[in-house]
Amino acid sequence: MSAAPGRLIGLGTGPGDPELLTLKAARYLAEADVIANFAKRGNAGNARKIVAGHMRPEVIELPLYYPVTTEIDKDHGDYVSAISDFYEESAKAVEDHLLAGRTVVVLSEGDPLFYGSYMHLHVRLSHRFSTEVVPGVTAMSGCWSATGVPIVQGDDILSVLPGTLAEDILAHRLSDTDAAVIMKVGRNLPKIRRALAQVGKLERAIYVERGTMENMAITPLAAKPDDIAPYFSIVLVPGWAAKPGESVDTSSQMAEVVA
Amino acid sequence: MSAAPGRLIGLGTGPGDPELLTLKAARYLAEADVIANFAKRGNAGNARKIVAGHMRPEVIELPLYYPVTTEIDKDHGDYVSAISDFYEESAKAVEDHLLAGRTVVVLSEGDPLFYGSYMHLHVRLSHRFSTEVVPGVTAMSGCWSATGVPIVQGDDILSVLPGTLAEDILAHRLSDTDAAVIMKVGRNLPKIRRALAQVGKLERAIYVERGTMENMAITPLAAKPDDIAPYFSIVLVPGWAAKPGESVDTSSQMAEVVA
Ligand SMILES: C[S@@+](CC[C@H](N)C(=O)[O-])C[C@H]1O[C@@H](n2cnc3c(N)ncnc32)[C@H](O)[C@@H]1O
Ligand SMILES: C[S@@+](CC[C@H](N)C(=O)[O-])C[C@H]1O[C@@H](n2cnc3c(N)ncnc32)[C@H](O)[C@@H]1O
Repeated sequence: MSAAPGRLIGLGTGPGDPELLTLKAARYLAEADVIANFAKRGNAGNARKIVAGHMRPEVIELPLYYPVTTEIDKDHGDYVSAISDFYEESAKAVEDHLLAGRTVVVLSEGDPLFYGSYMHLHVRLSHRFSTEVVPGVTAMSGCWSATGVPIVQGDDILSVLPGTLAEDILAHRLSDTDAAVIMKVGRNLPKIRRALAQVGKLERAIYVERGTMENMAITPLAAKPDDIAPYFSIVLVPGWAAKPGESVDTSSQMAEVVA
Repeated sequence: MSAAPGRLIGLGTGPGDPELLTLKAARYLAEADVIANFAKRGNAGNARKIVAGHMRPEVIELPLYYPVTTEIDKDHGDYVSAISDFYEESAKAVEDHLLAGRTVVVLSEGDPLFYGSYMHLHVRLSHRFSTEVVPGVTAMSGCWSATGVPIVQGDDILSVLPGTLAEDILAHRLSDTDAAVIMKVGRNLPKIRRALAQVGKLERAIYVERGTMENMAITPLAAKPDDIAPYFSIVLVPGWAAKPGESVDTSSQMAEVVA
């Protein structure tokens, strides 16, 4: 007996605070037959932690463990082939559940289609199975809301820059925008700091680690004494200049945030 | 008898679908003494509509009606002074409730500090009253999730561009980025279309109107037969080129796996 195929749901969990799940995400979590999530081996994963309070006890869990770590260079052929095989196998594992008629929710920190691994399943499966993406609050929204500093207004341009970019590219992009968000900070922090200093924007930069999580930390980047940053860290460069008729001083906003 | 001052909450409502409210937003709406929202006169406002199902019957409503519309040029002195007076008066109205000890929730479509009017109250009041910003799902996340097209991945740069920018600036910015989101489309659509065509990206652009709302429409911009766009419309230029089933550039995935 063959069941009608199930549904694929890419589900954004928001940046960390479980209360930043959407109502729709909470409903779909309660309806899921299978909950899949990408994680490092030996670690249940942050997205899994965010949704823990919404998982039915009888739900089938499908952890998808990344096969490689930092030991292999990312341009090395072994890495490229290992990660490619991994996404194929992950898609196959999800597909088996879909073919059995199950609703599969794939967790994604923040918003699924914004630098999220979920998209590797999405491009492989969404043309063959009924699929829905539930947007989530992004890490950057969680972080700038926690600092209380307006990020963009009016005609401002916002550039979202991965911290993995080369230093000269980062510096150029930072010089040529009103506001910036630098994602994927971690070990790239010394480079990010140099790029910001080079274009005179270090004093405006705000560093946020574990935004909206219990152990969140916010500090002006210039005042951060070390270059140690966890995976969940971001740098914000607010773009908001004074609007007609009012004077706005983001540095006084910051003073209050860090006080 | 004077009460302890109340709390100011800037609350993101998400892009339109009421189920995209966060759990925290729903809780704060239920706790609010006053719900303020920016709107055009004669129109309750979209944010108000999104949260309607979560408002207590006895809550105090504080609509803040924009004094000017499109008839006056935005660079004209009369506009600048009218809008500036309006934000001062709005802040004063909210302040009166805060001084009376009330919790005031200010609604903001999408995310409050991302091109939202709420920030004009925030900069005037947050240094004097206990304040919290509740992030929301942005319009752009709602729109790209509805299209199911991954917007950025790996080392992709995302540029968020207001459609109010001049055509040559738009064209330059569009040519010099991996992915783009163009906000504030409306009457700027003909200009946006020309800028995209000029840099060879019209074929990749996706037009979304009323994203996540009941009457949402999605179409490749090149296939849209007219240049009529409502206020709630956006243009997406995805940065990630892989098509369903095709092999993807896996080397760019490294950053996220090992960061
Ligand atoms: C692979 S990207 C995923 C982004 C996510 N899909 C989103 O919508 O924000 C991972 C990066 O997001 C940022 N990030 C995610 N959660 C964060 C948090 N709670 N605080 C600070 N940064 C965070 C970090 O820069 C991290 O390196
Ligand atoms: C003043 S900005 C506010 C943005 C909002 N704070 C956010 O987080 O997305 C208004 C613009 O957002 C876009 N927008 C808001 N809601 C939308 C929706 N549901 N669909 C498409 N575009 C939307 C439109 O481009 C509109 O001109």
